Amino acid sequence: MKYEDIKPSNKTDWRFKLHEVIYESNTPAGKAFDIGLLIAIFTSIMVVMLDSVISIHQQYGALFNILEWIFAALFTVEYILRLISVRKPILFVLSPLGIIDLIALLPSYLSIFFIGAQSLLVFRALRLLRVFRIFKLGRFLSEINFLTQALKGSLRKISIFLLTVLTITIILGSIMYLVEKRENGFSNIPESIYWAIVTITTVGYGDISPITPMGKLVASIVMLIGYAIIAVPTGIITHDIAIAARQKKELPESCPNCSREGHDSDALFCKFCGSSLY
Amino acid sequence: MKYEDIKPSNKTDWRFKLHEVIYESNTPAGKAFDIGLLIAIFTSIMVVMLDSVISIHQQYGALFNILEWIFAALFTVEYILRLISVRKPILFVLSPLGIIDLIALLPSYLSIFFIGAQSLLVFRALRLLRVFRIFKLGRFLSEINFLTQALKGSLRKISIFLLTVLTITIILGSIMYLVEKRENGFSNIPESIYWAIVTITTVGYGDISPITPMGKLVASIVMLIGYAIIAVPTGIITHDIAIAARQKKELPESCPNCSREGHDSDALFCKFCGSSLY
Amino acid sequence: MKYEDIKPSNKTDWRFKLHEVIYESNTPAGKAFDIGLLIAIFTSIMVVMLDSVISIHQQYGALFNILEWIFAALFTVEYILRLISVRKPILFVLSPLGIIDLIALLPSYLSIFFIGAQSLLVFRALRLLRVFRIFKLGRFLSEINFLTQALKGSLRKISIFLLTVLTITIILGSIMYLVEKRENGFSNIPESIYWAIVTITTVGYGDISPITPMGKLVASIVMLIGYAIIAVPTGIITHDIAIAARQKKELPESCPNCSREGHDSDALFCKFCGSSLY
Amino acid sequence: MKYEDIKPSNKTDWRFKLHEVIYESNTPAGKAFDIGLLIAIFTSIMVVMLDSVISIHQQYGALFNILEWIFAALFTVEYILRLISVRKPILFVLSPLGIIDLIALLPSYLSIFFIGAQSLLVFRALRLLRVFRIFKLGRFLSEINFLTQALKGSLRKISIFLLTVLTITIILGSIMYLVEKRENGFSNIPESIYWAIVTITTVGYGDISPITPMGKLVASIVMLIGYAIIAVPTGIITHDIAIAARQKKELPESCPNCSREGHDSDALFCKFCGSSLY
Repeated sequence: MKYEDIKPSNKTDWRFKLHEVIYESNTPAGKAFDIGLLIAIFTSIMVVMLDSVISIHQQYGALFNILEWIFAALFTVEYILRLISVRKPILFVLSPLGIIDLIALLPSYLSIFFIGAQSLLVFRALRLLRVFRIFKLGRFLSEINFLTQALKGSLRKISIFLLTVLTITIILGSIMYLVEKRENGFSNIPESIYWAIVTITTVGYGDISPITPMGKLVASIVMLIGYAIIAVPTGIITHDIAIAARQKKELPESCPNCSREGHDSDALFCKFCGSSLY
Repeated sequence: MKYEDIKPSNKTDWRFKLHEVIYESNTPAGKAFDIGLLIAIFTSIMVVMLDSVISIHQQYGALFNILEWIFAALFTVEYILRLISVRKPILFVLSPLGIIDLIALLPSYLSIFFIGAQSLLVFRALRLLRVFRIFKLGRFLSEINFLTQALKGSLRKISIFLLTVLTITIILGSIMYLVEKRENGFSNIPESIYWAIVTITTVGYGDISPITPMGKLVASIVMLIGYAIIAVPTGIITHDIAIAARQKKELPESCPNCSREGHDSDALFCKFCGSSLY
Repeated sequence: MKYEDIKPSNKTDWRFKLHEVIYESNTPAGKAFDIGLLIAIFTSIMVVMLDSVISIHQQYGALFNILEWIFAALFTVEYILRLISVRKPILFVLSPLGIIDLIALLPSYLSIFFIGAQSLLVFRALRLLRVFRIFKLGRFLSEINFLTQALKGSLRKISIFLLTVLTITIILGSIMYLVEKRENGFSNIPESIYWAIVTITTVGYGDISPITPMGKLVASIVMLIGYAIIAVPTGIITHDIAIAARQKKELPESCPNCSREGHDSDALFCKFCGSSLY
Repeated sequence: MKYEDIKPSNKTDWRFKLHEVIYESNTPAGKAFDIGLLIAIFTSIMVVMLDSVISIHQQYGALFNILEWIFAALFTVEYILRLISVRKPILFVLSPLGIIDLIALLPSYLSIFFIGAQSLLVFRALRLLRVFRIFKLGRFLSEINFLTQALKGSLRKISIFLLTVLTITIILGSIMYLVEKRENGFSNIPESIYWAIVTITTVGYGDISPITPMGKLVASIVMLIGYAIIAVPTGIITHDIAIAARQKKELPESCPNCSREGHDSDALFCKFCGSSLY
């Protein structure tokens, strides 16, 4: 779903003007709205963060409480404006950003009825994702497109890689559970798999670590595997970045005769129908 | 050994039909069998995992015990079916997947005779490797082939790299044993080598860490070495992925008219002179 | 701002000669000055370092105190010489190296008036940055230029990557605060974000680590994300190094006879038709 | 220095034959000698390792002591044979492998006169480096050459990178010493620099970790820097592996007319003098 589909078409409509300000950023008002929104998001997240620190909460708790309600009101108004400025509000509600906005908004209201629901305010952090929408408008657009395209090309290969890593950690974690036994911190298989993930990703908290010589040997093997295979996703992404870069500079985009695309930058003739590209 | 070699040739044979269902996935029945098997494997592993958690075992231990026997029966039937649906069952028994199936099956029966053998059930996790056989059938096939080929090309270079890393860790671990002494956790040389592996792979549990200034200096050198040489396997694999990618698309090698090369795998006409490539 | 702009132009001037010695390194005197300065910087930093070790301070504190004052005098003289050997001293004061020199110099004088200011002497370490200016003069120049250019090309992409990582850590840190609660070390959201950074970068101190099964599950996801996305900056930089390398040698672009490209920077004749490139 | 320079030239000489066996591996006797030596090295290191484990030492200490002397005698004989089979023994003594052999040999004799010198036996691990000489003879030769060439090309860039990392750790370690103070484990500047290296290389033991909020902020910055710049050596080595690979397949090595080298694999004419390469 694209926002364009739910955009009001009548250009003199007040809804069209509102839509321009709220959803687009190519007008001064739209840019101001976006930057104002970004500041509001950052401030509201900062308030939630600081409020979670006990010493600060004890001093400024009351102030933060008031600020929370101001932000809740602000984001509710923004949500309503977003709803009324599109032709089909239901499409916005179900769009990824619409769902995020709702998840970020609900805790403020839930905390009236349920004590403790206030801690769900942390979901407001999800609104940070909006930062990418706003950044899209500046000079970062082409870089973001470039990276997104490269990552999209890698997605399937990275999935296979992560599946392989998960399989390895399940097998090695299970073996480690046999080797090290319960007494040494490997209290059950899920715990051992957690240890295997901590180890193979080279994080290594040290909350669980092998104690017996045999366990240390198995752990060494896990570490060396992790050290060697970390190269795989890197190789994949590096390769796909190179491919994305090559496609970016491919000038003759489509054949003037058969309209097919995918020609090399040094091609003189269409590789599908044989007619000249220039 | 390929499964094709042990496949019954008579197409009207009941064994041929059974073989199609169990070993192949291009028929609806075969696909259903594979997905059903995958679900059974996942569930059985989940049961072994949960059963290892004491609190869950105390509550559902009896249920899990029954489930274990159902899975044991199920996998035994599957194993027998696999045996009778091929012409030369011994070839299946000795194939990698056959060995894995046997290792995964044995603990269920061993636990009748030996107390404690039940913990060997974790080897059922090895059956997860079958997931790759099943994935092979979808759109992931070409990606898996691509990655496998790239890794095969890197294997010898990665081996040399791991051998070098192991040599470095033995030497540095031995030196660290001299520097830090027994009292500081480096209680013997194998332990010190374990520490060197933990450090050079940047896992860093912290269960053993240098205490003397001299030891911290040596440790810093080990870390910087690890930080610099992690680049080596990455470089190797990135390079071999690029080579695998190039070989993949190098099909129509040279134009029959102008003899120039560098055409794409989907090219029908020479991109330099416009004459047909085939 | 370049030093060239503030260099005295009259070649017989004593200031010109002084400038040659202090700012340039292509004369024997200039090289000697640079190496002498580097030794002084290293020694002064070593003194600050050793003085911070209590046991060494108790034995050699008085000696170190005298040495501090000698270095303070030395660097003051150097700073004054730098000021008087340029035409517009204010330009040097405001240049990056001028600011570093001042920051490194001030603590020595501040410690006369304020007790404890001596600990600010560690800012002398900033002078180590001068080492790159001195290295620039040798055979390392082209390598430094090459790396700087590659990193400059990556800067914007790396910024987007770090922003994405920060957003992910804020979201995941907030979720972890909800999951693990205060009692398990995740005492507030900033602390949880700190944990998320420690985990996603695969550092893994283990000072805060998940305790509940749910927390370990979330942590495993964070680790696998960190393991997979570390490939992104690598891919970016590898790509930009390749581009920087290509630009470095892309000089004779196309043959004036057959118009074909892809010649090396040292090529004199076209490698395809054999006619002169110039 | 090459072994060829110190090889006896008279082919009927007994020294020549001995040299063939000890230094070369292309004769059956030479290969047998090398493999026998490798086994002796591995066994002797295994003995030193196991002897360092207290429980094993108490049981087999006497046996290990005898084995030590057998190995000492064996390696002494080998060293003497190496000396007498070359024309200029001093050149072997001063060669890298000659120095390693001596360092590995001395502790055995030192332990007669000095108690405790036996712990220096760990230097025998250095002999493991000989493994690469022996591997050179098999199919691994071209891979080793390939990797060595790629790493040689990266050496200067990696040095600059490590120097930059060291400078960053000294500056950040010094700042952290100011921020966290002595009480929190950052007891002096060298210790703080050690912490910065542990952190920036993503090892993260956790033996020293920030405690104050400000310290955690600085630590987060150090981690993100480490996470972003680990890509630099990878990019460098990947690039140099690609270059080494390109140079490897450059077939037309020198021009038949002007004898100059460095032509591309697709070149038909010499790029320096314009004459045909074939």
